Amino acid sequence: MSFIVYLSGEIHTEWRAEVQRGAEAAGLDVTFTAPVTDHPASDAAGDHLVKTESQFWRDHQSAKVNAIRTRTLIEKSDLVVVRFGDKYKQWNAAFDAGYCAALGKPYVTLHDTDIVHPLKEVDAAAQAWCTTTDQVVETLKYVLKA
Amino acid sequence: MSFIVYLSGEIHTEWRAEVQRGAEAAGLDVTFTAPVTDHPASDAAGDHLVKTESQFWRDHQSAKVNAIRTRTLIEKSDLVVVRFGDKYKQWNAAFDAGYCAALGKPYVTLHDTDIVHPLKEVDAAAQAWCTTTDQVVETLKYVLKA
Amino acid sequence: MSFIVYLSGEIHTEWRAEVQRGAEAAGLDVTFTAPVTDHPASDAAGDHLVKTESQFWRDHQSAKVNAIRTRTLIEKSDLVVVRFGDKYKQWNAAFDAGYCAALGKPYVTLHDTDIVHPLKEVDAAAQAWCTTTDQVVETLKYVLKA
Amino acid sequence: MSFIVYLSGEIHTEWRAEVQRGAEAAGLDVTFTAPVTDHPASDAAGDHLVKTESQFWRDHQSAKVNAIRTRTLIEKSDLVVVRFGDKYKQWNAAFDAGYCAALGKPYVTLHDTDIVHPLKEVDAAAQAWCTTTDQVVETLKYVLKA
Amino acid sequence: MSFIVYLSGEIHTEWRAEVQRGAEAAGLDVTFTAPVTDHPASDAAGDHLVKTESQFWRDHQSAKVNAIRTRTLIEKSDLVVVRFGDKYKQWNAAFDAGYCAALGKPYVTLHDTDIVHPLKEVDAAAQAWCTTTDQVVETLKYVLKA
Amino acid sequence: MSFIVYLSGEIHTEWRAEVQRGAEAAGLDVTFTAPVTDHPASDAAGDHLVKTESQFWRDHQSAKVNAIRTRTLIEKSDLVVVRFGDKYKQWNAAFDAGYCAALGKPYVTLHDTDIVHPLKEVDAAAQAWCTTTDQVVETLKYVLKA
Amino acid sequence: MSFIVYLSGEIHTEWRAEVQRGAEAAGLDVTFTAPVTDHPASDAAGDHLVKTESQFWRDHQSAKVNAIRTRTLIEKSDLVVVRFGDKYKQWNAAFDAGYCAALGKPYVTLHDTDIVHPLKEVDAAAQAWCTTTDQVVETLKYVLKA
Amino acid sequence: MSFIVYLSGEIHTEWRAEVQRGAEAAGLDVTFTAPVTDHPASDAAGDHLVKTESQFWRDHQSAKVNAIRTRTLIEKSDLVVVRFGDKYKQWNAAFDAGYCAALGKPYVTLHDTDIVHPLKEVDAAAQAWCTTTDQVVETLKYVLKA
Repeated sequence: MSFIVYLSGEIHTEWRAEVQRGAEAAGLDVTFTAPVTDHPASDAAGDHLVKTESQFWRDHQSAKVNAIRTRTLIEKSDLVVVRFGDKYKQWNAAFDAGYCAALGKPYVTLHDTDIVHPLKEVDAAAQAWCTTTDQVVETLKYVLKA
Repeated sequence: MSFIVYLSGEIHTEWRAEVQRGAEAAGLDVTFTAPVTDHPASDAAGDHLVKTESQFWRDHQSAKVNAIRTRTLIEKSDLVVVRFGDKYKQWNAAFDAGYCAALGKPYVTLHDTDIVHPLKEVDAAAQAWCTTTDQVVETLKYVLKA
Repeated sequence: MSFIVYLSGEIHTEWRAEVQRGAEAAGLDVTFTAPVTDHPASDAAGDHLVKTESQFWRDHQSAKVNAIRTRTLIEKSDLVVVRFGDKYKQWNAAFDAGYCAALGKPYVTLHDTDIVHPLKEVDAAAQAWCTTTDQVVETLKYVLKA
Repeated sequence: MSFIVYLSGEIHTEWRAEVQRGAEAAGLDVTFTAPVTDHPASDAAGDHLVKTESQFWRDHQSAKVNAIRTRTLIEKSDLVVVRFGDKYKQWNAAFDAGYCAALGKPYVTLHDTDIVHPLKEVDAAAQAWCTTTDQVVETLKYVLKA
Repeated sequence: MSFIVYLSGEIHTEWRAEVQRGAEAAGLDVTFTAPVTDHPASDAAGDHLVKTESQFWRDHQSAKVNAIRTRTLIEKSDLVVVRFGDKYKQWNAAFDAGYCAALGKPYVTLHDTDIVHPLKEVDAAAQAWCTTTDQVVETLKYVLKA
Repeated sequence: MSFIVYLSGEIHTEWRAEVQRGAEAAGLDVTFTAPVTDHPASDAAGDHLVKTESQFWRDHQSAKVNAIRTRTLIEKSDLVVVRFGDKYKQWNAAFDAGYCAALGKPYVTLHDTDIVHPLKEVDAAAQAWCTTTDQVVETLKYVLKA
Repeated sequence: MSFIVYLSGEIHTEWRAEVQRGAEAAGLDVTFTAPVTDHPASDAAGDHLVKTESQFWRDHQSAKVNAIRTRTLIEKSDLVVVRFGDKYKQWNAAFDAGYCAALGKPYVTLHDTDIVHPLKEVDAAAQAWCTTTDQVVETLKYVLKA
Repeated sequence: MSFIVYLSGEIHTEWRAEVQRGAEAAGLDVTFTAPVTDHPASDAAGDHLVKTESQFWRDHQSAKVNAIRTRTLIEKSDLVVVRFGDKYKQWNAAFDAGYCAALGKPYVTLHDTDIVHPLKEVDAAAQAWCTTTDQVVETLKYVLKA
């Protein structure tokens, strides 16, 4: 049994690598996908297109280019993991969760206990809440059990 | 021409009342809907159900009850306005935006200039970005023009 | 704010009337719908059609006629309440719950504590679990709050 | 011609193995999938996540983890076989049938004659009713005929 | 409880009027809709458009105009009755049945016993088979029972 | 029988008024909807939002505001009439036609004979091609026939 | 470029083999699928299930088993060819065409000129009408052009 | 990471080859698809079918045959590039864009600055606007970044 798992959210820690190493160590047949996680590259994703002075339109243009990748990968995945770290607003992660919810695409969240309350709507529509990458791997192990 | 407009997000300022007054002053045929905006009531939405010590499950239960209302109202609306204020994490607002995006439901955002960058994915899928409630009303006036 | 609520499941107790009285007492704007709850009539729903000796085909024919009503009412509802009583197999109630889950139609369950375990999949996809009709009414009151 | 067949329901008898042996003996190109059929493992599917004293929330958590697997496999299958045995409530099997019905996913049921009446709604939406695993295999043989 | 019922198929007998009189006599709250049943008008539905010598393109043009009405009415209906009489090919009736089946729109058939065999695929996807307009009315009475 | 008809395309001639007068004269129960047809207002639809020097982003912003209205009205309509005049590129009209085609929303075209060839893909997915507003009215008369 | 083509309809002539030979001769990368074309086997498709005296229920049962195959193959195909021969009622072929139309699945028809009129609704929703298997092959050649 | 990219629109310049060479030079794993780009062949796509004197029906027939290919390829693609050149009306390109928009299929446009204004609705629903084939390749490089 194989799965495609999209890893959404935080891009400034090693959580993706941890999940992937854990899955590999467990011999799971999982293909992991992700947004472009190079922050400056992501912010500049549309800079080769219309030149613009405005911060709003620069962001707009880059975000729309990023969405070509992220929407497609989310729609092709079997499961999405949405990670909320301890920095930044991370509204894009919550946006991805809402997107999954409307599609009926299962997702699990990965975040610390101290943000349980503000994430209650996001967690309520999730299939599981994990606090560690080990729990994510454990969940995958169970789901993909022979 | 009439419209149903769901007002999502921030519940600690008067923005909903401002939009409604503006629409009324302009004589627009708009029905406004919203989540339950009484914060303590919303947090306690599931407290009449299973008793639970755990903060996580209490939140979970309340959030699922709230979703009965919010998902239904979003799906019945013609337009959603998603408001991001200057307090709290407001992940539920971003979640609603993602939910709309996946449904193909048009939404506009309402937030200050200083959070343009972290909201770029949310704005990129929106039909418009407003910074004031007057701009929201102006947008409705145009959209509902005879 | 108004809602259409379909009351699925058990047909041998007064739970539907209790929920309706409660909603009325609370002044809620709810339209309740339901399957045909007259048990012999329901079993005979197709008896005016092809004559058949076989129990299987008699049941088959009646169940398909009943489905004209039940599927349509479920699809037109805003919320479904699925009741599991203490008698009979009630697979049709669980079937309705699964049907709702696949449609993304919100539902709440209504059942005693002693059947929590066998109903775990049904409850997991529900927006709430109630043990009393009062809790159902309370949930509706909250959801329809002005 | 190949098919993916999801085997839903009863986990305490050998029916899945019988169907698989029959299909293999007939040289059919069928991939069989199933939920995790280890009962204690299934009940504990979420135990590595939030610790909870409550039976309800433990079940809730495990059922949601199980659903990651089951929903995905049902959606990827070409046909679902839903088995009702002579023990337990088996509401999850009826739930899966309802889920298939709403998706337009074809399913066949497998159960004894004595439960024809309580299963009439489930059978009415099925493509076939089988009483033996041989009949399931026979059905597959026909469907996959060169 | 009210229903919209589309009456598809045969246009050369009084079956529509019979069903409507029966429903009226029973005091049912049903709105009946139908294709244009004036045969020459239906064949000429597109004659005010492109002039064409070709029988094929004349028929093509008229059939596409008719479809504006028939598709819309089928999609807006709660139930479709598909009538097969004893004259003509009536492929359009079978086409409507297939259209309903793919939409998940419930339909019942109305035809004599002698064409059970060639209509088996059409009947298999129907919710009921009636041989008389009385049976259709009886079915509506049951479905719309208070 | 009533219909909602969206009138898409050319905004510089009187064709919408002609169709509406014809429908009124024929006593048809049709509600007509349309985009904002005041050209300068439409170009300025987003000018109350982000100030921008760039023609591209000004157009972008206005077009997205216009789409709030046009997409909603198209989705709510029963039929769309897409008009191609003899001036301007009118890509938005062809865009609306493609949008309808993908939704399965029926539309008819209204254009002169000399542009039949470049419009062949647009006409091929339409239910009818009209050259005069009288033909549009005639088509509506037929479709709405009692 | 490759295509999956489902060959629906008439089972008493060699038309499927002709289309396949033509496609092979042209070196096209097409996978052809079809219903079970052995007439007695098809009529008996459900005879291994519930024993029934009634012709109606025997046909019903077999038709539902056949639908497991036919619906799945239609949904997996890129194009459907629907053949109407000069014998039998062939309502199942028209049913398949209606099914395709509602799914937005492209289909072409294959039939003689003398039945153009009764097939006008079926042809109107088709992408092409062919009178010979050579025309079907020619159409495939064009569609799959490198 | 691999992508399927459909190249829609202009058929009289070398833009498709340029994009493909660029993608190849960058070592991208992209499969490019396209309509039949041989103009006379495309106009004659249905000439092997019904003979017709009428230009309208000849175009109609050919356009419907072309749509078998184009709709299928658009639906199978991950991204569509819609090219508007400086000749012809190119309504089919705008039609494809509208089709993508309604499906939620991401597309980018490729056109010169001088037609920004008439293409504003088409660009507003696009994920990006490119003016050169290099920009298209650059966009693909970013989207497919390892």
